[in-house]
Amino acid sequence: MGAGTHIPAREIPIPAYLSDVARKYLQPQPFSLPYPTVDDTAGWRAYADTVDAAITPMMHQISAQLDATVQELDAGSARVFDIVPAGAAADRKGIILDIHGGALILCGGELCRIMGMGTAARTGRRVWSVDYRMPPEHPYPAALDDCIAAYRALLEDHGPSEIIVSGGSAGGNLAAALMLRARDEGLPLPAGLILGTPEIDLTESGDSFHTNDGVDPGLRSLMPVNLLYANGADLTHPYLSPLFGDVTGFPPTILTTGTRDLYLSNTVRMHRKLRAANVAAELHLTEAGPHTGFPGSPEGAEIDKEINRFIAAALGDI
Amino acid sequence: MGAGTHIPAREIPIPAYLSDVARKYLQPQPFSLPYPTVDDTAGWRAYADTVDAAITPMMHQISAQLDATVQELDAGSARVFDIVPAGAAADRKGIILDIHGGALILCGGELCRIMGMGTAARTGRRVWSVDYRMPPEHPYPAALDDCIAAYRALLEDHGPSEIIVSGGSAGGNLAAALMLRARDEGLPLPAGLILGTPEIDLTESGDSFHTNDGVDPGLRSLMPVNLLYANGADLTHPYLSPLFGDVTGFPPTILTTGTRDLYLSNTVRMHRKLRAANVAAELHLTEAGPHTGFPGSPEGAEIDKEINRFIAAALGDI
Repeated sequence: MGAGTHIPAREIPIPAYLSDVARKYLQPQPFSLPYPTVDDTAGWRAYADTVDAAITPMMHQISAQLDATVQELDAGSARVFDIVPAGAAADRKGIILDIHGGALILCGGELCRIMGMGTAARTGRRVWSVDYRMPPEHPYPAALDDCIAAYRALLEDHGPSEIIVSGGSAGGNLAAALMLRARDEGLPLPAGLILGTPEIDLTESGDSFHTNDGVDPGLRSLMPVNLLYANGADLTHPYLSPLFGDVTGFPPTILTTGTRDLYLSNTVRMHRKLRAANVAAELHLTEAGPHTGFPGSPEGAEIDKEINRFIAAALGDI
Repeated sequence: MGAGTHIPAREIPIPAYLSDVARKYLQPQPFSLPYPTVDDTAGWRAYADTVDAAITPMMHQISAQLDATVQELDAGSARVFDIVPAGAAADRKGIILDIHGGALILCGGELCRIMGMGTAARTGRRVWSVDYRMPPEHPYPAALDDCIAAYRALLEDHGPSEIIVSGGSAGGNLAAALMLRARDEGLPLPAGLILGTPEIDLTESGDSFHTNDGVDPGLRSLMPVNLLYANGADLTHPYLSPLFGDVTGFPPTILTTGTRDLYLSNTVRMHRKLRAANVAAELHLTEAGPHTGFPGSPEGAEIDKEINRFIAAALGDI
C-alpha cells in the first residue's frame, strides 16, 4: 500500500461565506455517549432510547410546523406511516417509499413518523415511511425484510413507474439493499432512487473515513453498531454493504453528500459504481457540508430543489 | 464565525482498493522549491523554467506515445497548436479549444503542445491548444487576452455549436473567465464547457484549502503566484476569479475533481453556482483523487469516459 500521509494537527475555520444556519452545523460536537459492548442487549436498548429521547424535542419542534394527514398501515411485518402533505394536489403523481436514517438502531416509531412528514413537506408528495424493525431486538435481516414487505405492499396499488425509493444515511443502506433484493426476488425496480449520504459500506473502508474524521463534526465511526446490526452476518455481503453489490439495472439515481461528510467516499464510490454500470446517476455536493447536510438553510434548500427536480423527471411529472 | 474545528495530527493511509497506478499519485511529495518574492522577475523566470524543466522529461515520455498532426497558428496575439489526432475520422464533429494548466506560470510552449496532444488523444478530436502568455513577463490580462483572441479566431471558421472549451486547473480559470468575457464582448458561447478541478478562486477562500491541505499530496496554496499573475488587479474580479462572476447563460458544463483535491471546494462551489443559474452542469468526483487526478489509471479512464460522453452530447454527435 505504500506510505500514508502524515497530517499535522491543525485548526479548520468555519467558512465565512456559508449562511448563518449552515455555520451552526459546523460547530464542534462532543461525543459523550460511549457504545455498549456488542452483546449487551440492555445496554444497546438504553443507548438507542437515550439518543432517541435527546433528538425527540427538536423533532417535535419541526413536526409542529408540518401539516399532513397520517395513517398507520400494516405492510406485512412492517408498520408504515402513509403521509399526505396538506395542500398536495389530489392528482399529484407518484409516491415516495421513504426509509429513515439513524444508524440502523435509531429513529423508529414517532421519529419515523416525523421524518416521513418532513420528506412529504419537502417534496410535496405522498410518502410511505417504513417503521422497520431494528437492533438490538431485531438485527439483520429484519429491517431489510420490512422494507421489501413495504415495497411489495406498495406494488399492489402502484406501478413501479409511480414509485420513488428514498433513503438517507442508514436509510440509504436499506434503500440500495432493497434494489438488490427486489431484483433478486424478481420484483420490478422503481422509477427513481434517492441516496442521501448513504451508509452503503458497513466495513467503513472509504478514504473519507480517514480524511473527514473529526472534520465532520457530528458523525464518527459506527462500527460497533454495524456489528450489532449484522449479528454475525458478513459485513461485505451486498445486502449489508450494497457498495459491493452488482448495481446493473438500477433506476435513475440522485446522490447527495458534502465535502466534510464522513460518508463522502461512500457516496462518491456509489456514484462511480452506478456510472460504470451505465445507470443515469447524478451527484450533488454541499460545500463544507457534514453528514447532516444543512437542513433549514439556503444551502439545504438548493439540494432539496435538485431532489424535487429529479423526482418530477423520474415520475414523468415535469 | 464561531469556533473552528481542532483536528489532531494523524496518518491517512493510501486506500487499498485503488489501482496500483492511482496509489502512486498519493505518495507524499516534498515541496522543495520556495517561491520568489512577488517583484523578483528573474527569480520567477528561474522558478518557472526549473519546474517546467523538471516536468519535461515525463511529458516527452507521454508525447512519444502520441500520434498526431500538429500545426502552429497565429491567432491574434496568441500562438495556437492545431492538433489532429492520428486516426481521427475526417468527418468527426467539433473542435476543442484547450487551455492548459500550470498555475498560470507553467507549461507554455513545448509543454502546451504536448498537453494539447494528450487532450486530442483522450478525446479523439481536433484540438486548438492555446499557448497563452504568462507571468512574470506577461501578467493579467495577457493570458485571458490570448484565450479570447484564439476563441475569436476559432469562431471565424466554426459555429459556436461546434466548439467545446476545456481547461484544467489554471486552464479552468481561463476557460471560465473566457465565458464571462466572451459574453461581455457579445460573442456567442460554445456548445460545452469542461472544467477540470478549476482554479476559479484566486483568493483561495474555499473550505478544502483547509480540509485538504496536505491531504492532497501535490498541491499547496498558490497565493504568491496568484498575486504575481494579478499584478495588482483585484483577485475577486470575475475575470481573475470566475467563481465570483455571473454564470447565467453558461453552456452545459462538466466539472471534475477528487475527494482529496485541494480544489474540491472550488469545483463544488462552481457546480452549485451553475446549478443555481439553471445551467446543465454535472459533477464527477474521483474517490481519493488529488488535484492531478489519476491519469493513466482505470480510475482516470472512467472520468475520461464521462468527458467524452459529455462532449459527444454537447456536439450532438451521439
